[in-house]
Amino acid sequence: MYIKDIGEHQLLSIINQYCDQTINGDDGAIIAFDSDRNLVVTTDILVENVHFSDRTTPPESIGYRGVTANLSDIAAMGGMPIGITVGLSLRGDTEINWVEKLYQGMKKCLAPYNINIVGGDITKSETNTISITALGKVSASHSIYRHQAQVGDVILVTGNHGLSRAGLEILLFPEKYSHLPPQIREKVIFAHQYPKPRLEVIKYLYELCQYGYRIAGMDSSDGLADAILQICHQSKVGARLDRTSIIVDEAITTIIGRKTAFEWVLYGGEDFELVLCLPLNLAKKIQQEFGEKCQIIGQITSSLEVQIIEQQNSNLQLSLNQKKTFQHF
Amino acid sequence: MYIKDIGEHQLLSIINQYCDQTINGDDGAIIAFDSDRNLVVTTDILVENVHFSDRTTPPESIGYRGVTANLSDIAAMGGMPIGITVGLSLRGDTEINWVEKLYQGMKKCLAPYNINIVGGDITKSETNTISITALGKVSASHSIYRHQAQVGDVILVTGNHGLSRAGLEILLFPEKYSHLPPQIREKVIFAHQYPKPRLEVIKYLYELCQYGYRIAGMDSSDGLADAILQICHQSKVGARLDRTSIIVDEAITTIIGRKTAFEWVLYGGEDFELVLCLPLNLAKKIQQEFGEKCQIIGQITSSLEVQIIEQQNSNLQLSLNQKKTFQHF
Repeated sequence: MYIKDIGEHQLLSIINQYCDQTINGDDGAIIAFDSDRNLVVTTDILVENVHFSDRTTPPESIGYRGVTANLSDIAAMGGMPIGITVGLSLRGDTEINWVEKLYQGMKKCLAPYNINIVGGDITKSETNTISITALGKVSASHSIYRHQAQVGDVILVTGNHGLSRAGLEILLFPEKYSHLPPQIREKVIFAHQYPKPRLEVIKYLYELCQYGYRIAGMDSSDGLADAILQICHQSKVGARLDRTSIIVDEAITTIIGRKTAFEWVLYGGEDFELVLCLPLNLAKKIQQEFGEKCQIIGQITSSLEVQIIEQQNSNLQLSLNQKKTFQHF
Repeated sequence: MYIKDIGEHQLLSIINQYCDQTINGDDGAIIAFDSDRNLVVTTDILVENVHFSDRTTPPESIGYRGVTANLSDIAAMGGMPIGITVGLSLRGDTEINWVEKLYQGMKKCLAPYNINIVGGDITKSETNTISITALGKVSASHSIYRHQAQVGDVILVTGNHGLSRAGLEILLFPEKYSHLPPQIREKVIFAHQYPKPRLEVIKYLYELCQYGYRIAGMDSSDGLADAILQICHQSKVGARLDRTSIIVDEAITTIIGRKTAFEWVLYGGEDFELVLCLPLNLAKKIQQEFGEKCQIIGQITSSLEVQIIEQQNSNLQLSLNQKKTFQHF
């Protein structure tokens, strides 16, 4: 039996047997380190022609996005990063300039957080592959897990969704969208190529709640819908989303029309926003601090469904359950 | 300009510009974590047909060796491991059984240290690649670096060298050596396929020297000669090795003859022993605890050369300097 016969889901369940049984299904792993601080660690692999191609992503952006994906996982666990390691497998015919641009992109993403590339390995391969491991600190009282959402929590997102997916579209089919205003194209391409991890929100939460909090959450790397469904699944709750609170950026609507735009907002992925389930008063403080991009888009319910409601007419517009979505992805 | 045009050494110096300038050239990176404990981290990539092939290495051994290489790097920094992450890139036509055996090998190596696989990532690729990151704890007073050897230190190895190289030879050319006794072939094949990290030595040193020590060292993953030269280079010292103290296992001599056997002992690599430079009395305590496999093979000198001396007739047998050896590898 081969991997191609069973797919990722079943392969993961086989591999999970060999992994730490106390760690499951979060963006990163939290490991006991000292009495008051734990270590949070996360790993991502980027493979040429699977996760990136020269067609859509210059090397600087590959490095930047790779680091963002990892730092976003650290943020999603409530951690602050302390460093990353980079493992590179490279074809001999890779240009030196490509490697330099890759590292420049990584450094650019790391710079605002004052952290470094602390280690790594380089080796030959037939396929260019970048494996990044990010390390962070988190205290037990500030750890964020997917499984701890509670009925009555509001759901807050730290920014808009769907822009990265729209950027990918423009990069894949540039001629098709060449008639659009440059500022629209540039906006979504930038969102795709240089997404930011939302560490500033975690930093703010540490300062605001020095003695800790209970927040459930993850990042939206696999899409907003996926994040909400994962949190609900692991917390054994449901959610009721307010259609009008879910912002659809005008740029996306201009590119692809209203209906598909909303699909991209829900399922697009790679926006690397945080999706947090927390008490209303805490959510409001985050909104006050970071402005209108932080939106409360719904709340956690005891029903196990995730529903999207158009508030004006109370029409049920969309109802997702885990099963439907696992087929979807 | 392409990677193939400049080689690993120059590529590393380009990449190092983008890395933490306070960390250089040790087996792993030590990062400040809490007031009394630091984090030590190391990454290794194993690529199909570069670092392993089904011809010489069953998947269980690939997993085992991959973990040993990483835990050995943790030991070489004076650390004790707390967990590993595993990033896998796999071809679709990889057998599930191969993946299971790989993880079984990793678990087998981890088990004696009571640590786990704490995280990872899986992705498709055209080249099977395993990226392992090991995490450990080390206190500042017990950190081992390459640069802190001092004149007068003795050089201690925690076990014999060359066995792994001999095992590789038998695996590559089985017919050529089919006339040899099975116990000889099995001994060196086992040494190649299931090498152990020398964490028990680090554990003992922690217990013996609770307030710390000053030890220089690294592991012999790239060979005994390489380890001594690296330590001498970074500590700006030389070494005088005693030819008769460097044990050449009879099995190696039986396989390849006296002259090449000694070359393999010096340059073979992948034995994953520790090469430690430390005061004589501390070295003697390690020998008392771990027996005759721990050998004092020479001492650190102020001359910048690394010389091997046949004590009986004081003939200079071999004199290496950094330049010669950098060409050698």
